[in-house]
Amino acid sequence: MDNYEPIIKLLLEAVKGNISSIDKKEDTNEIPVGISNRHVHLSQADMNCLFGEGYQMTKIKDLSQPGQYACKETVTICGPKGAIEKVRILGPVRSKTQVEILAGDSFKLGVVPTVRLSGDLHGTPGITLVGPNGSVQITEGVIVAQRHIHMNCEDAKQLNVHDGQIVSIKVDGPRGGIYNNVVIRANDASALECHIDIEEANAMNINSLSKIKIIK
Amino acid sequence: MDNYEPIIKLLLEAVKGNISSIDKKEDTNEIPVGISNRHVHLSQADMNCLFGEGYQMTKIKDLSQPGQYACKETVTICGPKGAIEKVRILGPVRSKTQVEILAGDSFKLGVVPTVRLSGDLHGTPGITLVGPNGSVQITEGVIVAQRHIHMNCEDAKQLNVHDGQIVSIKVDGPRGGIYNNVVIRANDASALECHIDIEEANAMNINSLSKIKIIK
Repeated sequence: MDNYEPIIKLLLEAVKGNISSIDKKEDTNEIPVGISNRHVHLSQADMNCLFGEGYQMTKIKDLSQPGQYACKETVTICGPKGAIEKVRILGPVRSKTQVEILAGDSFKLGVVPTVRLSGDLHGTPGITLVGPNGSVQITEGVIVAQRHIHMNCEDAKQLNVHDGQIVSIKVDGPRGGIYNNVVIRANDASALECHIDIEEANAMNINSLSKIKIIK
Repeated sequence: MDNYEPIIKLLLEAVKGNISSIDKKEDTNEIPVGISNRHVHLSQADMNCLFGEGYQMTKIKDLSQPGQYACKETVTICGPKGAIEKVRILGPVRSKTQVEILAGDSFKLGVVPTVRLSGDLHGTPGITLVGPNGSVQITEGVIVAQRHIHMNCEDAKQLNVHDGQIVSIKVDGPRGGIYNNVVIRANDASALECHIDIEEANAMNINSLSKIKIIK
């Protein structure tokens, strides 16, 4: 029976090799997911109004996109029909204040849900933000974030997509399906991650450990 | 020029005829949508505990499914991590109490989100319900409703599906996509309607005027 040992060893190695190559193949197609709740990006001027001149935000957590972080501070956002308290501020400051809400929030606040990419704020609804030092009324900047996938240029090459391309994403599982109109955002300051909001995650049973696949 | 009149009349009628037949064709494929928020169906015994022996619910609105209605009354549902107030009761009473929550509610309440069809309650989480007359603790009955399409047998024949069949639904628009694992529920006590919850509706920008299509 001793003669079998080298054969078994070879077989085991062959099987291991197959398993690791299957793993590798799946890894290249699968994209991690980042799930966003409602949040606010502030301009320096609006931050001064809401928190006081020279106020320094307190970082509590780095986000997966390099340089982005969650702050300890929150604000209340108030629309014509209602308010939502404790909306998290994300740093660093931006050139324009941007309020990213869930589609469901739009009914509570009384604003028209407007699906847009971050930064594309022309013609979007305004809102009032209230902080410990005062309030500001922005005339535009409230969006429901369009689903998108951050990646660097190397990822884009490997996934055979390009910056600005519209793709669909496929989700497996008992509540699975396909989301269309997902925008590729490829640049070398980005980490590979598909961004959807809490409602989009819940509707397909997606959590922070889920992986999605691009379909074209 | 008078000679043209009958020709124009004929052309107009032909065009009208085409338009109405196109409308008809689209209608046969498109299915109206009913969007559910969290709600509770009570057994008679649990209703007696929560509202008092012999209490009569007040109907405020008929629902699209024949015989089903929303009541004025609400309860608080309490899980190990949190409570949700003002959860609507739907009538009439059922043989077993069933609490239908949103996936997002499960985190707030601290219960495992369990996607099930209405009535399939074995092994689902329990919860405490609180009403004006007392509270009841159910040992199972909390579900996240599996998306489904009610229809009568004539609809099923026309749509070429059968009771219990799993299909996908397609949603158009800027936040469109496909939901898989949608169950056909065909019986002659049902009206044609695709039931999804608020999170599923918001994730694809679906409202009560939206139409969906079955894909197989």
